[in-house]
Amino acid sequence: MVCGMSPEAFDRFAWNLFREDAPYGDRTTEALELRGRMRGRFLVKDDLVACGLPAARRVFELADPECLWTSRFSEGDAVKEGNTLAFVRGELPALLLAERTALNLLQRLCGIASMTRRLTEAVRGSGLRVCDTRKTTPGLRLLEKYAVRVGGGANHRMGLSDGILIKDNHIAAVGSLSEAVRRARARGGALWRVEVEVSSLEEYGEAVAAGADVIMLDNMSDEDMGRAVRAKPAGVLLEASGGVTAERLPAIAALGVDLVSMGALTHSVKASDISLELEADPDAA
Amino acid sequence: MVCGMSPEAFDRFAWNLFREDAPYGDRTTEALELRGRMRGRFLVKDDLVACGLPAARRVFELADPECLWTSRFSEGDAVKEGNTLAFVRGELPALLLAERTALNLLQRLCGIASMTRRLTEAVRGSGLRVCDTRKTTPGLRLLEKYAVRVGGGANHRMGLSDGILIKDNHIAAVGSLSEAVRRARARGGALWRVEVEVSSLEEYGEAVAAGADVIMLDNMSDEDMGRAVRAKPAGVLLEASGGVTAERLPAIAALGVDLVSMGALTHSVKASDISLELEADPDAA
Amino acid sequence: MVCGMSPEAFDRFAWNLFREDAPYGDRTTEALELRGRMRGRFLVKDDLVACGLPAARRVFELADPECLWTSRFSEGDAVKEGNTLAFVRGELPALLLAERTALNLLQRLCGIASMTRRLTEAVRGSGLRVCDTRKTTPGLRLLEKYAVRVGGGANHRMGLSDGILIKDNHIAAVGSLSEAVRRARARGGALWRVEVEVSSLEEYGEAVAAGADVIMLDNMSDEDMGRAVRAKPAGVLLEASGGVTAERLPAIAALGVDLVSMGALTHSVKASDISLELEADPDAA
Amino acid sequence: MVCGMSPEAFDRFAWNLFREDAPYGDRTTEALELRGRMRGRFLVKDDLVACGLPAARRVFELADPECLWTSRFSEGDAVKEGNTLAFVRGELPALLLAERTALNLLQRLCGIASMTRRLTEAVRGSGLRVCDTRKTTPGLRLLEKYAVRVGGGANHRMGLSDGILIKDNHIAAVGSLSEAVRRARARGGALWRVEVEVSSLEEYGEAVAAGADVIMLDNMSDEDMGRAVRAKPAGVLLEASGGVTAERLPAIAALGVDLVSMGALTHSVKASDISLELEADPDAA
Amino acid sequence: MVCGMSPEAFDRFAWNLFREDAPYGDRTTEALELRGRMRGRFLVKDDLVACGLPAARRVFELADPECLWTSRFSEGDAVKEGNTLAFVRGELPALLLAERTALNLLQRLCGIASMTRRLTEAVRGSGLRVCDTRKTTPGLRLLEKYAVRVGGGANHRMGLSDGILIKDNHIAAVGSLSEAVRRARARGGALWRVEVEVSSLEEYGEAVAAGADVIMLDNMSDEDMGRAVRAKPAGVLLEASGGVTAERLPAIAALGVDLVSMGALTHSVKASDISLELEADPDAA
Amino acid sequence: MVCGMSPEAFDRFAWNLFREDAPYGDRTTEALELRGRMRGRFLVKDDLVACGLPAARRVFELADPECLWTSRFSEGDAVKEGNTLAFVRGELPALLLAERTALNLLQRLCGIASMTRRLTEAVRGSGLRVCDTRKTTPGLRLLEKYAVRVGGGANHRMGLSDGILIKDNHIAAVGSLSEAVRRARARGGALWRVEVEVSSLEEYGEAVAAGADVIMLDNMSDEDMGRAVRAKPAGVLLEASGGVTAERLPAIAALGVDLVSMGALTHSVKASDISLELEADPDAA
Repeated sequence: MVCGMSPEAFDRFAWNLFREDAPYGDRTTEALELRGRMRGRFLVKDDLVACGLPAARRVFELADPECLWTSRFSEGDAVKEGNTLAFVRGELPALLLAERTALNLLQRLCGIASMTRRLTEAVRGSGLRVCDTRKTTPGLRLLEKYAVRVGGGANHRMGLSDGILIKDNHIAAVGSLSEAVRRARARGGALWRVEVEVSSLEEYGEAVAAGADVIMLDNMSDEDMGRAVRAKPAGVLLEASGGVTAERLPAIAALGVDLVSMGALTHSVKASDISLELEADPDAA
Repeated sequence: MVCGMSPEAFDRFAWNLFREDAPYGDRTTEALELRGRMRGRFLVKDDLVACGLPAARRVFELADPECLWTSRFSEGDAVKEGNTLAFVRGELPALLLAERTALNLLQRLCGIASMTRRLTEAVRGSGLRVCDTRKTTPGLRLLEKYAVRVGGGANHRMGLSDGILIKDNHIAAVGSLSEAVRRARARGGALWRVEVEVSSLEEYGEAVAAGADVIMLDNMSDEDMGRAVRAKPAGVLLEASGGVTAERLPAIAALGVDLVSMGALTHSVKASDISLELEADPDAA
Repeated sequence: MVCGMSPEAFDRFAWNLFREDAPYGDRTTEALELRGRMRGRFLVKDDLVACGLPAARRVFELADPECLWTSRFSEGDAVKEGNTLAFVRGELPALLLAERTALNLLQRLCGIASMTRRLTEAVRGSGLRVCDTRKTTPGLRLLEKYAVRVGGGANHRMGLSDGILIKDNHIAAVGSLSEAVRRARARGGALWRVEVEVSSLEEYGEAVAAGADVIMLDNMSDEDMGRAVRAKPAGVLLEASGGVTAERLPAIAALGVDLVSMGALTHSVKASDISLELEADPDAA
Repeated sequence: MVCGMSPEAFDRFAWNLFREDAPYGDRTTEALELRGRMRGRFLVKDDLVACGLPAARRVFELADPECLWTSRFSEGDAVKEGNTLAFVRGELPALLLAERTALNLLQRLCGIASMTRRLTEAVRGSGLRVCDTRKTTPGLRLLEKYAVRVGGGANHRMGLSDGILIKDNHIAAVGSLSEAVRRARARGGALWRVEVEVSSLEEYGEAVAAGADVIMLDNMSDEDMGRAVRAKPAGVLLEASGGVTAERLPAIAALGVDLVSMGALTHSVKASDISLELEADPDAA
Repeated sequence: MVCGMSPEAFDRFAWNLFREDAPYGDRTTEALELRGRMRGRFLVKDDLVACGLPAARRVFELADPECLWTSRFSEGDAVKEGNTLAFVRGELPALLLAERTALNLLQRLCGIASMTRRLTEAVRGSGLRVCDTRKTTPGLRLLEKYAVRVGGGANHRMGLSDGILIKDNHIAAVGSLSEAVRRARARGGALWRVEVEVSSLEEYGEAVAAGADVIMLDNMSDEDMGRAVRAKPAGVLLEASGGVTAERLPAIAALGVDLVSMGALTHSVKASDISLELEADPDAA
Repeated sequence: MVCGMSPEAFDRFAWNLFREDAPYGDRTTEALELRGRMRGRFLVKDDLVACGLPAARRVFELADPECLWTSRFSEGDAVKEGNTLAFVRGELPALLLAERTALNLLQRLCGIASMTRRLTEAVRGSGLRVCDTRKTTPGLRLLEKYAVRVGGGANHRMGLSDGILIKDNHIAAVGSLSEAVRRARARGGALWRVEVEVSSLEEYGEAVAAGADVIMLDNMSDEDMGRAVRAKPAGVLLEASGGVTAERLPAIAALGVDLVSMGALTHSVKASDISLELEADPDAA
């Protein structure tokens, strides 16, 4: 697996990125007839959590199968500003072709892992698991959910096929929360828990009564979430969702809910600041 | 064209997004045996610039070829919080399948267009064109560069195949700036201007002497940029790049440079806040 | 959805089947210069459960977008020998192109649905759910698991991504059953139950103690399964698996296990006997 | 070629199978954090004819490019119950990922080759060639026709592009058998023989008169087939088809027809019983 | 079928051509913000045989699903200089996008059909069939072989999968011509004739003795070919190949060989001269 | 890059060619059960400019990853009749599979490079650059434009996305030449020159006045072109186009235009005469 994708899927994805950037090749490099071996150094210009190194490496390998990649960091390592995340040696045209594509991936994945790390650190020891959502960048879900894991977060559903989550629209269409839970139990897979989203304590009571296994408390006040926790039957998990900010996280953790899901982990990411510095390859003869 | 992509490329992209989200179908909807026609309303929860409506519409059409999409807004319209961006009517399972995919696209594209609009408004009338970069989300370049255009910004190169831009690494590899420009002129297409990136007034002088058509002033102080503008030969364009923030933009505009490029337009986007509200279809019998 | 596949995935699959059968076109039809409109009649030559009609219909529509398909049967209907499963009218070359591909699909899916129906009927009322396995024909999993549902069976995991099932190899690699369950709980999704496969009452006891949510009784005697049922804690599900034949099914149902999984449902299917009779189109002018 | 498929086509097919089984990876293996090298042993639990070993091997190589595959059997070898068909050593996660996919392929192909072998042995020495049909599993035609060859059978047409076979529908559309043969001669390729399907001795006479090169005797009694054989002109081949069972085969062989085609070879296959036993890798340090 | 390709294969091919020509859209049209409906007229500037009209039409339909195509010519019609091959009405941006792609196809296919027509006319009535070879433009084989048929020529093998043709390299590898023919008979399909290439009368004698069904006379003098014709057994076909020019064709026809194959039909084509004239749409309001 | 294509794009293209030629494998080779290692020699039967060697080599490597390719010629070398362009050693079935595909590519690319070389030699020293057009064989544009470069020619636009070229249809749609140039300047990329096609000296004057950077003189007489050259403002480039033949080239060069574009370079190519001779591998044990 390459950052949560199968090797074949990642390669197809990466070739697509090359096509996106250079459908007719790199015109500048070709016009200048650049040649020769060089070394690239990924310079960290911002403290970050390393994430996406195998993906970036693979991008360079596709551009130049002979390139050499070395790094003293592993996925999930905290890396301070001024460090070199990795070195890559190879033919200059390949380095220039892969540079932007690799950086775009790396900056985004490090950005997600770093933000997730900050949030999970903030609630460390509380038992609260910080989860992502389906609000991922179109086409990057597997990579982004991987970055959340690297940052210490937990993945919620990978998608609509990956578990049952009953929301207000479902309940409205079925007629009642309890009937929705009943159908989900009868037709859903034997291996799944049934999650229900509720937005009031009244609905929460209904969900408990209907036998939901996981209950998502949507946009509830801390006070109401506290009440829900206290009324929680054994074996049921509670998830806080909606309007959750970094600031609110410790307070939510203190309430005793089990999971919190935050769309911002993936939909509003600040890219980490990393640059690629090219220099003479010290090992070239 | 669908938001800058060919209809066929967009459809392939969108089917991929469905596969990403629901490789085995929507388990909740299927387990609950949901049926019937409903109406979805895209509610704007944050002032924004409309962008991506044709893409979102197409996502719904792929999920339900019979669905109906209506909107009183066009691409580029400023839309106030509380407005309905668009309505979509169709079969409930299709609406639920398309909902998240459409929202993820719409929120991102509106986010880019809105940020670009804010920046271009800030320098309105100055003649400065606000450009994007190649720092786009992997796989979304055509859509994101389209959103920049919708927001009033200009596209810089679409990618490495799309024009010649000589940077420090190229110059180092070729040996000198003037030789690099000479090669680009000899081998590049007859229809292109040659752009050179410089980071000092000394290099700027070299670029002018070498006959560069466009000169990118990288991470220069306002003072130095001012000097460059004053020394600019007729017919040459100047581009400010690196370390450009929204705050600095008016000052840069005042200097008289022609173009400014900002990676943040596409790599650190805040998604616009839009939700899809489902309700009974008022036209259903 | 077309028989459990997205419309786009089914179309790609079907075009592949045409390429498999006719990479250079239908040489006989072309050499004979056949033309004209005809009607095809799917004749049932063996009692069966209808399954795959939307897939067969779509195959004809791809071959001739103007073709007309009519059927008085729905998926899951029991159809007696001698009945006409469906009619299709269209251009003769298209009918001849689609004929074999449609029949190959239809015969297989009807075969699976019919066998599943026989088995589920045999345990009707007992509460035992008859499940499929991952022993499906390569490339046809979604279609075959759909046919199992149409026949009244239940789907077990769609694949390795679809739930956690701990087998002997996993336990051997981890070191102990209880540690394996512990890890699965810590790292698996919040919405899932953890299933463990055991092959003795001793292992069964361990699985119960470790807190498994579902326990697969692999190749156990009826006697041992009976003991397991009697020792089952509340909320735990038991699944019989391995060496389950149609004959043994009623006995297993009587024991009180919740699920039984049978590879034979999909890996050793007898195709239903259906033929396509072509005749003059009664509606052609 | 990998079991009748080009290496590239087989790889695409196999990656598809991985996607079918594990679109989000192997959740169990990942949750349990399994690691380490192991050895898998393909245990034969049923006498069979080996078929599909290169395909199974390739599946493992795609999952783990470093895996080692060894087997003392070749395609077509008869293997007795209790033997080890092959060994594969590699990383445990890769073995678990490839296991089911490889087994599903292997069991099906061995099943087809074994059945074909039984049938061809039954008519050994008679000169009768046992042929397959186009009644193959959708998507697996090249593999299944390969298995028929491995089992000692002959391939009939690969598909509609692969030779001219005139059936009743064609004759009805053209107007007469002799006109159909005439057109096929005039427009078919110079390298082909023309086959005609007949269902009575009367039609047989027409086919002979029209100059058919191969004549398919469809659903004829042994008596009628005997008459046809006796009336066969030099250079013409006869093919028995329809309603041919294993039991009838020796009698048909005795009649002196040249070819017999049986759909059951591929459409109603019993999978061979093979399991993969994982064990400590004896060569691991 | 669209000019010998399945509709789906042609569409994929055509979308590829658009990507080849316009990966980022049509920059000129977009920069000029062109809009409005126009009519295009395919003007014939050189006598030609019409071929490829359905392909050209489909290219326009993909660019603009609402476009209208009309033509009074059919595939194979001789069209004089100055005639309008077809009209197409649609949105200007779509017409400009499709123009070059459609012309490139049309000019090539008309060129092949026209050259084939000239050659077949030159031997009309002689019974000699003019065949193509596998020397087709990479990627265009189905289209080019279709154009040969439209021009009145016959297709030889579509490719390596389409019949058995034994050449000198095969014979060298097998050991002898007769053994090669023997193996081809034993293992080749029942529906095929076996063709052997010979380059001397001695080899010709061997091929006849070995029972070849078709014999290719490679680069033989007219005199030797005449001898071969006189020595031809009943039922055998002779094919002249190698060094066949338009000038030599009538002489070869006079010899009495059955087939002649010419690589030049497809590998050295002169494009027909056709232009697309755009004009105001007379039907636009 | 493989002859102007990315390695991944070339591989996909080449696998397609194998599928085109051998969807069911090479029937002759398989029926004859050919085996063993041989050497192929590409014999030049016509003076030519070498082009496409990396493409031909890759085709063989895909057919047999163990094959060995050697050549003493590089792309662009002039090679005399009778020379061996390259040797390839490998398994016989792979050589036979790759032979035709490699030759079809090689003959076409050598043909284009050779014709381009002849034309560029004819105007050597004149400063005139010989350019290709978009009149390339559908699907082969990148390869053909590469062959033009190898032959010493220059590439004009790669396609519609690659620069702005304003033609009569655009001008008609916009209303005036000057407005079209104005729009192109306002909305086109900063790095591009704007080209305008004119067909009279009057239009030429307009184009100059409008500030066009490059002006295409379409189908103009030598006399008018001479006048245009004399009236050319500094910094503007002139391109001769339409009706340019090899014979006219020196006269055009003498006029002093900068560029000439010729569709014949790619749309009416005579394939170079190259054959592949197979022989015993001298290095085989």
